Amino acid sequence: MFKTNITQLLKIEYPIIQAPMAGGITTSKLVAEVSNAGGFGMIGAGYMTPNQIREQIKEIKQLTSKPFGINLFVPNEFTYTESEVKSALQKLQPFRNQLHINEENNIDIPTCDQVIETFNEQIKVVIKEKVPVCSFTFGIPSKEIISKLKMNGIILIGTATTVVEAIENQKSGMDMVVVQGSEAGGHRGNFITQSQDSLIGLMSLIPQVVDHVSIPVIAAGGIMDGRGLMASLSLGATGVQMGTAFLTCIESGAHQVYKEAIMNAKEDQVVLTRAFSGKYARGIKNKFISELEKHEDLLPDFPVQNALTQTIRKASSSQENPDYLSLWSGQSPRLAKNQSVKMLFNTILTEAKEIHKRI
Amino acid sequence: MFKTNITQLLKIEYPIIQAPMAGGITTSKLVAEVSNAGGFGMIGAGYMTPNQIREQIKEIKQLTSKPFGINLFVPNEFTYTESEVKSALQKLQPFRNQLHINEENNIDIPTCDQVIETFNEQIKVVIKEKVPVCSFTFGIPSKEIISKLKMNGIILIGTATTVVEAIENQKSGMDMVVVQGSEAGGHRGNFITQSQDSLIGLMSLIPQVVDHVSIPVIAAGGIMDGRGLMASLSLGATGVQMGTAFLTCIESGAHQVYKEAIMNAKEDQVVLTRAFSGKYARGIKNKFISELEKHEDLLPDFPVQNALTQTIRKASSSQENPDYLSLWSGQSPRLAKNQSVKMLFNTILTEAKEIHKRI
Repeated sequence: MFKTNITQLLKIEYPIIQAPMAGGITTSKLVAEVSNAGGFGMIGAGYMTPNQIREQIKEIKQLTSKPFGINLFVPNEFTYTESEVKSALQKLQPFRNQLHINEENNIDIPTCDQVIETFNEQIKVVIKEKVPVCSFTFGIPSKEIISKLKMNGIILIGTATTVVEAIENQKSGMDMVVVQGSEAGGHRGNFITQSQDSLIGLMSLIPQVVDHVSIPVIAAGGIMDGRGLMASLSLGATGVQMGTAFLTCIESGAHQVYKEAIMNAKEDQVVLTRAFSGKYARGIKNKFISELEKHEDLLPDFPVQNALTQTIRKASSSQENPDYLSLWSGQSPRLAKNQSVKMLFNTILTEAKEIHKRI
Repeated sequence: MFKTNITQLLKIEYPIIQAPMAGGITTSKLVAEVSNAGGFGMIGAGYMTPNQIREQIKEIKQLTSKPFGINLFVPNEFTYTESEVKSALQKLQPFRNQLHINEENNIDIPTCDQVIETFNEQIKVVIKEKVPVCSFTFGIPSKEIISKLKMNGIILIGTATTVVEAIENQKSGMDMVVVQGSEAGGHRGNFITQSQDSLIGLMSLIPQVVDHVSIPVIAAGGIMDGRGLMASLSLGATGVQMGTAFLTCIESGAHQVYKEAIMNAKEDQVVLTRAFSGKYARGIKNKFISELEKHEDLLPDFPVQNALTQTIRKASSSQENPDYLSLWSGQSPRLAKNQSVKMLFNTILTEAKEIHKRI
């Protein structure tokens, strides 16, 4: 009952993809366990150096012989002024004080050229190491990159938050598209539609996208169990991508404090913010988000604000303090459990079979 | 395959409820046709006088022998200052000019006591006319009213936008609860949770509510066809409430201009606004919403702003001009069709059966 065009294309047993969450969550163990369980594990490589990527691919290959994938952030032009940065740093100073960060504020803001160069290097590693699948967030890469990846037999997955974005992904040659509902945790993947207009719930988004593209559609956002899987398949998706459900798994690299914050959160405490990175993302409302709420529109864009908050997030993590951490989560935190990947797969499949009988 | 606790309780064939949209949309013909088709028709009586309700109930009973229901707005305390009203009227004057409204601005703002009295009178009619089912929006009525309705054998349906609100509905004695996802068109039904925190997509909302209440859960928001029905049942709801899908039906009382605006809209043009009524509602972004966008937070609360904009909406409607009408719609306008209720039911049921085979 789980055979879809996605299981066929990705050569997997179940149409369940582990979302490529960036920032140390997708450990080699997590990725490998997902692929070993019959799903599709993915490296969230957005913030990783080419070397780190190379290392992790090697590690994963030792843990599984099954296919897995990788996700990269498509670079976007950005600008900022010195006064913008100065004002943002002033707003961040109280947090540094509260965390007793004494070191010099040596902020390393990358240039656009550096970001593009890193991306090109990341692509080279993906080709060199023959990663079978590469997905993209924050846009669509250039024609040259797409054709180079395709020539190397790599399957490409795009991200869309609206029908228009899904159509653009198809036009560009993407083999499938992840549709990110408003329920989704972490960064919004919108790249054509404005942030505030791109918050479409999956109940609306999946069928409208499915009616407008012919490539396989993967649903993402708030999907945690067999109920979400069967609902997504009903709506016309042929697979799901699950983030938060894997984030709280034993094998994930998320800090224990982070996992607990999700498991203690309610659905109405998961908010959209650009305070951490300069780009809208969904996470559990904590002190950091609350205190910067009124200044949000004035903060510099991604990746500038992300660079400015790095030491704060790091210190908060090492002090096991969830107040200043980015606690990305989808809108279903009440369904999160601290369990093994294998156990999660077992419950999803059992539930899905029960639902098939029931409805 | 469509027998659920809801079809049993409501004595209907299919777990499909027509949302009780207020403002002249739920004509007797629409309500009766839905019930005749095996679903559950409902009168959106929020803005109706007791007399109008009595008349419509009579009319419907001549068109169907099947059960149908009614929805009422639970009164909430509200206050306003004269200067608030004066400033709002000033902001509305340009629209009056554009619509050539020359008549005196005789605004009739009701008092809290008047609103409560109307509600009590509406309840009396519901009991007198033995309407089998009564649903509520914007809160939970008093214990006295609930027990009076229950003593008269009337089935009660509450509305919730979060888990907490669903639990409160159950505690109060509601027989079932509509969970309104962020996808939903028209007014937000939140009454405990703050507006901005109550925007939970159905993919997240349904399973989290189902895990916390024992009364039947009805899904509402963006559901337009057999895909939405099967997805909702997969997530644990035992019925769906559909608004926009019925609004564009031939039998609905919505203005042709309004129906066309929905059928021409895209999913990212349906926004939240409090410009029309003072309460957040989802509708197609038009001139009225765009031009009041920056002043939104300053407008008086419901039902004051609603009273202030009444002549504008009326004039816009009679001039067949969609620019100043409240074009409430869910997030799935691309799925809307101008068809008969019977045809809508046929497609839903055919699709649902196909999905059952496919997944």
